[in-house]
Amino acid sequence: MCVYENRRALLQRGMQREEIAAVVVPPSSDFLYLTGSPRPEAQRPAALVMTQERAVLLMPAFECGSEPALAASLELCPYSDEQDAASLLAGLLPARGCVAVGRQMRASLLLSLQAHRAALRWQSADSLLVPLRSRKSAEEIRILETAQHMAERALTRLLEEPLIGRTEKEIAARLRQLRLDEGFDAVGNGIVASGPNTALPHHVNGDRAVCRGDALMFDIGGTYRGYRADFTRTFAVGRLPDGFEDVYSVVLQAHLAGRDAAAAGVPASDVDQAARRVISQAGYGPFFTHRLGHGIGLDIHEAPFIAAANTAPLETGNVFSCEPGIYLPGRFGIRIEDLLVLQDDGVHSLNTLSKQLQIV
Amino acid sequence: MCVYENRRALLQRGMQREEIAAVVVPPSSDFLYLTGSPRPEAQRPAALVMTQERAVLLMPAFECGSEPALAASLELCPYSDEQDAASLLAGLLPARGCVAVGRQMRASLLLSLQAHRAALRWQSADSLLVPLRSRKSAEEIRILETAQHMAERALTRLLEEPLIGRTEKEIAARLRQLRLDEGFDAVGNGIVASGPNTALPHHVNGDRAVCRGDALMFDIGGTYRGYRADFTRTFAVGRLPDGFEDVYSVVLQAHLAGRDAAAAGVPASDVDQAARRVISQAGYGPFFTHRLGHGIGLDIHEAPFIAAANTAPLETGNVFSCEPGIYLPGRFGIRIEDLLVLQDDGVHSLNTLSKQLQIV
Repeated sequence: MCVYENRRALLQRGMQREEIAAVVVPPSSDFLYLTGSPRPEAQRPAALVMTQERAVLLMPAFECGSEPALAASLELCPYSDEQDAASLLAGLLPARGCVAVGRQMRASLLLSLQAHRAALRWQSADSLLVPLRSRKSAEEIRILETAQHMAERALTRLLEEPLIGRTEKEIAARLRQLRLDEGFDAVGNGIVASGPNTALPHHVNGDRAVCRGDALMFDIGGTYRGYRADFTRTFAVGRLPDGFEDVYSVVLQAHLAGRDAAAAGVPASDVDQAARRVISQAGYGPFFTHRLGHGIGLDIHEAPFIAAANTAPLETGNVFSCEPGIYLPGRFGIRIEDLLVLQDDGVHSLNTLSKQLQIV
Repeated sequence: MCVYENRRALLQRGMQREEIAAVVVPPSSDFLYLTGSPRPEAQRPAALVMTQERAVLLMPAFECGSEPALAASLELCPYSDEQDAASLLAGLLPARGCVAVGRQMRASLLLSLQAHRAALRWQSADSLLVPLRSRKSAEEIRILETAQHMAERALTRLLEEPLIGRTEKEIAARLRQLRLDEGFDAVGNGIVASGPNTALPHHVNGDRAVCRGDALMFDIGGTYRGYRADFTRTFAVGRLPDGFEDVYSVVLQAHLAGRDAAAAGVPASDVDQAARRVISQAGYGPFFTHRLGHGIGLDIHEAPFIAAANTAPLETGNVFSCEPGIYLPGRFGIRIEDLLVLQDDGVHSLNTLSKQLQIV
């Protein structure tokens, strides 16, 4: 049985357990997880419809020829531009019971399905899919680690070049190219924040040129074989900004405290708390303005979330970021992010790049 | 009043007319249309909430500093990672009545809002937003035309290079770069289909190398200042494939028949029918497997759809594609696509590139 058939069989087992009559998944990371197809979202609806008996793929008829692998592995329900796709899809659903829809389905489709089938109950498919997707297989972990190393190499190559005088946008463009050269299938802009911009955790790269004495933050990733890389390093340019060394040391201690706290069976909130405590005790509590981390896989942000509100225990196979930060408005911000994986023998980082304070 | 305030005021007028108590729009093309912000979708929810009295922006607190323009023009409702965004958002909704949500909202958020506020009625915001977005302003038409010309220039430059022996993927990568050089903010892969692959209307670019005697189809676009380009040309490489000239002539006549039929007040289905009739009468009816066209603007596919099922009359300001095609499995396919705009003095093409049969 191929990996995707196996995942669909596990999904069906969950449906039986939770008494879900059907699951409807549009093109999305859930769809990729269940079918292997990176089919993009499009205005013409497509969806995998799973029941206990069937796995049907609704898609535009004129596109069936372009996806022979998908068409071979699933029962096809093709439709033409003269037909109403939502009404056809509604017709594939069972007579009664609860239907779980992929979290990334668009409201336009969901509202239309709900209108067609008002007697059905609707819920998110997360309760079925999150437990599957958040426990990564050895193969998934291998791909995530490869992607992470590719992103690290791209940054390492960038740091061999002079940076002073180049703008954030110019450096980001260069880093895009370096990541594509490493073999990523797709890359975003990432975050290249300089000077006081590093105090904005989700800074949008701008035209500020890097100066000597700046803090310089890189938060980058990329998509490789569907899976995502993501890590952050913060450097000092040429010389240390005032107070940088002390704050860096607090963030690094917080990072290590988070990592040390992570283990199967430990509530995610405890891991967040372990890192947050270090920062609070150093007096910077109000300046760590986000959760400690997020799961990662086919999505850049997915379960498990390492946050105060998530008291669910971590599990073997979880892969998530550990990224404490301290952001001092008008001065600088520092964030240090690795991806961690929980395995039978404990927690491991997927990163190899040093986290020690470095002047570039 | 700025263009976005004006659009929000028009939306509120529509809400009053249709008795919609609130509109909720997540980051999406609708959000861009109403706020001017190209804010991307993210796992942490954000949404514009419009009522008759207020325009509130729910967003993560730690990101507020990164979007000063948005923060200045709207009432902010920031939340931290310790709060439940969906529950906060639900709390911003009115006590009773109907809530319209942006079509691109994710099911995860909509289901959560519905669970929090079971007494409210839910519908798509399309009935309010489509009439606004589908009638383009002179400024929007100017941007769409500029984008279309940029894409045309990129293809023209490509055609100055030798193509035989290069793979679809290689040519697509080159065409990406040429489009970025023209000034597009973002470009996709587009469709570069060669030989029998042209018979797949939505072919996924592969490793087939272009040969003499191939049909060669380019369907490309790009994003410029938020707006989309989109056009298709099909060429013969070196010499005409068997039967190519006759089929080309039918597709071109169908294209012109579609264009001639387009006018304000004419049902979209009549325009589809006018082009389809030419193809059917030539005996190729079963090989024209999709609708004639789609509206275009901030989305690549948006209202009005030029399809048998859409009997709504076209309006001045509509911009849409006219793209008849004939696809002969195993042999070749031909599609010719321009963008058309309906103005007070009639229909105009936004394209300038010749549609005559050309050997490249």
